[in-house]
Amino acid sequence: MSVSMVLPMLADMYTGYSDWQVFFVCIIITAFFGGSLVLSNAGKDFTISVRQAFLLTVLSWLSLAIFAAFPFCFSELEMSYTDAFFEAMSGITTTGSTVIVGLDSAPPGILLWRAILQWLGGIGIIVMALSVLPFLKVGGMQLFRTESSESEKALPRAAQLASSIGILYLGLTVMCAAAYMFTGLGTFDAVAHAMTTIATGGFSTFDSSFANYDRAWTELVAIVFMILGSLPFVLYLKAVRGNLKPLLNDSQVRWFISIVALAIIITVSYLVLQADTPFLEALRRATFNVVSIITGTGYSNGDYSLWGGFAVSLFFFLMVVGGCAGSTTCGIKIFRFQVLYAISSVQVKKLLHPHGVFIPHYNGSPIPKDVPISVMSFFFLYALCFSVLAIALSYVGLDFLEAMSGAVTSISNVGPGLGEIGPGGTFKHLPDSAKWILSAGMLLGRLELFTVLVLLSPHFWKH
Amino acid sequence: MSVSMVLPMLADMYTGYSDWQVFFVCIIITAFFGGSLVLSNAGKDFTISVRQAFLLTVLSWLSLAIFAAFPFCFSELEMSYTDAFFEAMSGITTTGSTVIVGLDSAPPGILLWRAILQWLGGIGIIVMALSVLPFLKVGGMQLFRTESSESEKALPRAAQLASSIGILYLGLTVMCAAAYMFTGLGTFDAVAHAMTTIATGGFSTFDSSFANYDRAWTELVAIVFMILGSLPFVLYLKAVRGNLKPLLNDSQVRWFISIVALAIIITVSYLVLQADTPFLEALRRATFNVVSIITGTGYSNGDYSLWGGFAVSLFFFLMVVGGCAGSTTCGIKIFRFQVLYAISSVQVKKLLHPHGVFIPHYNGSPIPKDVPISVMSFFFLYALCFSVLAIALSYVGLDFLEAMSGAVTSISNVGPGLGEIGPGGTFKHLPDSAKWILSAGMLLGRLELFTVLVLLSPHFWKH
Repeated sequence: MSVSMVLPMLADMYTGYSDWQVFFVCIIITAFFGGSLVLSNAGKDFTISVRQAFLLTVLSWLSLAIFAAFPFCFSELEMSYTDAFFEAMSGITTTGSTVIVGLDSAPPGILLWRAILQWLGGIGIIVMALSVLPFLKVGGMQLFRTESSESEKALPRAAQLASSIGILYLGLTVMCAAAYMFTGLGTFDAVAHAMTTIATGGFSTFDSSFANYDRAWTELVAIVFMILGSLPFVLYLKAVRGNLKPLLNDSQVRWFISIVALAIIITVSYLVLQADTPFLEALRRATFNVVSIITGTGYSNGDYSLWGGFAVSLFFFLMVVGGCAGSTTCGIKIFRFQVLYAISSVQVKKLLHPHGVFIPHYNGSPIPKDVPISVMSFFFLYALCFSVLAIALSYVGLDFLEAMSGAVTSISNVGPGLGEIGPGGTFKHLPDSAKWILSAGMLLGRLELFTVLVLLSPHFWKH
Repeated sequence: MSVSMVLPMLADMYTGYSDWQVFFVCIIITAFFGGSLVLSNAGKDFTISVRQAFLLTVLSWLSLAIFAAFPFCFSELEMSYTDAFFEAMSGITTTGSTVIVGLDSAPPGILLWRAILQWLGGIGIIVMALSVLPFLKVGGMQLFRTESSESEKALPRAAQLASSIGILYLGLTVMCAAAYMFTGLGTFDAVAHAMTTIATGGFSTFDSSFANYDRAWTELVAIVFMILGSLPFVLYLKAVRGNLKPLLNDSQVRWFISIVALAIIITVSYLVLQADTPFLEALRRATFNVVSIITGTGYSNGDYSLWGGFAVSLFFFLMVVGGCAGSTTCGIKIFRFQVLYAISSVQVKKLLHPHGVFIPHYNGSPIPKDVPISVMSFFFLYALCFSVLAIALSYVGLDFLEAMSGAVTSISNVGPGLGEIGPGGTFKHLPDSAKWILSAGMLLGRLELFTVLVLLSPHFWKH
């Protein structure tokens, strides 16, 4: 984190903003704390227990957000620590909700820092989804244990896997930035947007997000790379090695593409039939915003809450969907819907044939015994956490639309909500209490609920 | 149904309303169709298959609503068939949403008919929950199979059980009516409200519902009998026979009372602290409305949407909770939350001790093997149906608040929604398409989803 602050410092130095001093101080503070932790534990041989793994995961993300907030706090934007922490948490969890008004005139260091946070968060979550979560059996992630980690001799070690994924991630970012530049963006904006596109983060360098450009080709680049950021990265590794089949035949990828296509068709039909929008205009608006919302990116090219009640309701539900497991996206994720669907179908069949034996399948194989309960518990806790967040937000004064959409956008790490906190507004005007509640929601959602909820169970602390 | 139309006919004759002729014609039509069905199948020996049981259940409720709509259609209220069907479905499913404006001046026959529909719906669902649903294994209802039907020698046959419950139901209704009269209501209003209170239905004989009286004692009677209508009726049978223990020790009853108490405390705290309401006033308003909403009754004593965003958000979530299984209430129901909680706790423990063996319990006994998946599928399908209903409602033009609350109030059979369709308004102004969508939601919710969804599966029609 300390090293990653060097880039924004250089950006501010190069452009003559005094904020480079802020980054300089933050580099030293972060390096001091981080260095102390490294040094004080160096050379020791660790065996980490399951409980320690949970605690370590949560504390890592929490301390990253705590330190990442400092540059916001001390920069010339003069944000309160609450605002700074909110912005940092929103960045590192690739959410994309912002409390900053006036991005267009903000120092480049801060803009770059926001992009870097999301970029780091994106790669962090992919590596975590491949290495830590399957072993912790969080919310059905054990489904990906054998597939990606144990039986594959081509990718033997977690560290090697992480570095391969890292190179790929960097490669995609460079490609995305190049494509943005090709459509006319300046280098700085292209790089900043590429970082938050591939991470499905959604921070922009403009208050008006993509409406600032209003250029179809730029939006097309964003659409392509948001989708690329939502597919399982481990399948890209195989594709790069010449084996395209796993990527093309993966049922999660197919479901994802189908759901996106269906949502676009419905939205276009509404825009054309009910709101008298010309077809091409409707197609462009619908595609960009549906992809942005369902992948949890949160870019906008105009305020979709002005399209009428239907778009608001549809987008509310699309927010929870998310992309594929092992990608940078958040939300409930496609594979869980596949498992839930498979189990529910089997349930219906069982009602009709009480003595029949039906086995739910995922991606062509029977679903392992402990996965259904794991996935369904995740779904229940998702609904429960959403309810608690929404009730808490309304208790501190948000109206129904803000409370509902704020809860869903934080736990699903999307970015904008609806109403005042929608794509046309920011989270700045919310009371501090609401910002802390939303920050908690972001962390909860990003760490797949269980990782955090485990720490809240009395059982965790008992022995 | 035909016989039950005699009472409203007599009421209209007695008070000199010409609508008695409408009821007379409806009696003949209904008796003709019902009689033909009975006669054409009389003397035959039936063995009903599981598939036929599902089809029969859904078609029974559907045809009850179709015929129950006729009096509304032809009465002096001159409702369209869409409106009449909506009102009838809302009645028979004990929902309580209404499209009638001007109840205060409506003919007594119609008012009584609305009350009778909810009363019949209430006893119908209790009997169904005790006899049909456990054997069809719908959404975890098999949990109550052994408990109430098989191992209990005291209640050997379903028919005998139904008649005992029926007598008890009638007794509670009479007690409720007497209590209402004691607080000053006229005989007619007392009987009509007693019928819809014990059925947790919510139809009133006044547009302004309980605000018409604005009397604390009347509200107290309603609170007591709404709660009585929400507890498992089979436990009353035991209580009447001198065994109070099962009622007092039942974990579902305890959870229900605790959740109600918690919701009241939170609401009172909000009203007192944030809205400057005097404590006793806050207690009265909160208790009446929380009980009315959580039990799915839907009476109101004033428009709680004017209390501010918090009440709106809290009540939105309370709507889905519902009462106990084997009562007249709808919604997800307490026992499902208990099962979901037990399973999620076990999941969290399992994450910490991957090789530990933990068994979820319900009411002191281990949960049977097939119940968790059954309950969790129910929860998932509840969320899915809610989403589809809300998106469909917004597609036909409802705004976010109406679409969300309309979907939840119909599938949970509560009654009022929020906003224009809230306790201060009616469903009259909605487009016809929305009324049919809401009617479908009511049937879906009342028949515990699976009973209806099974018919939609291609598997049902295949063999």
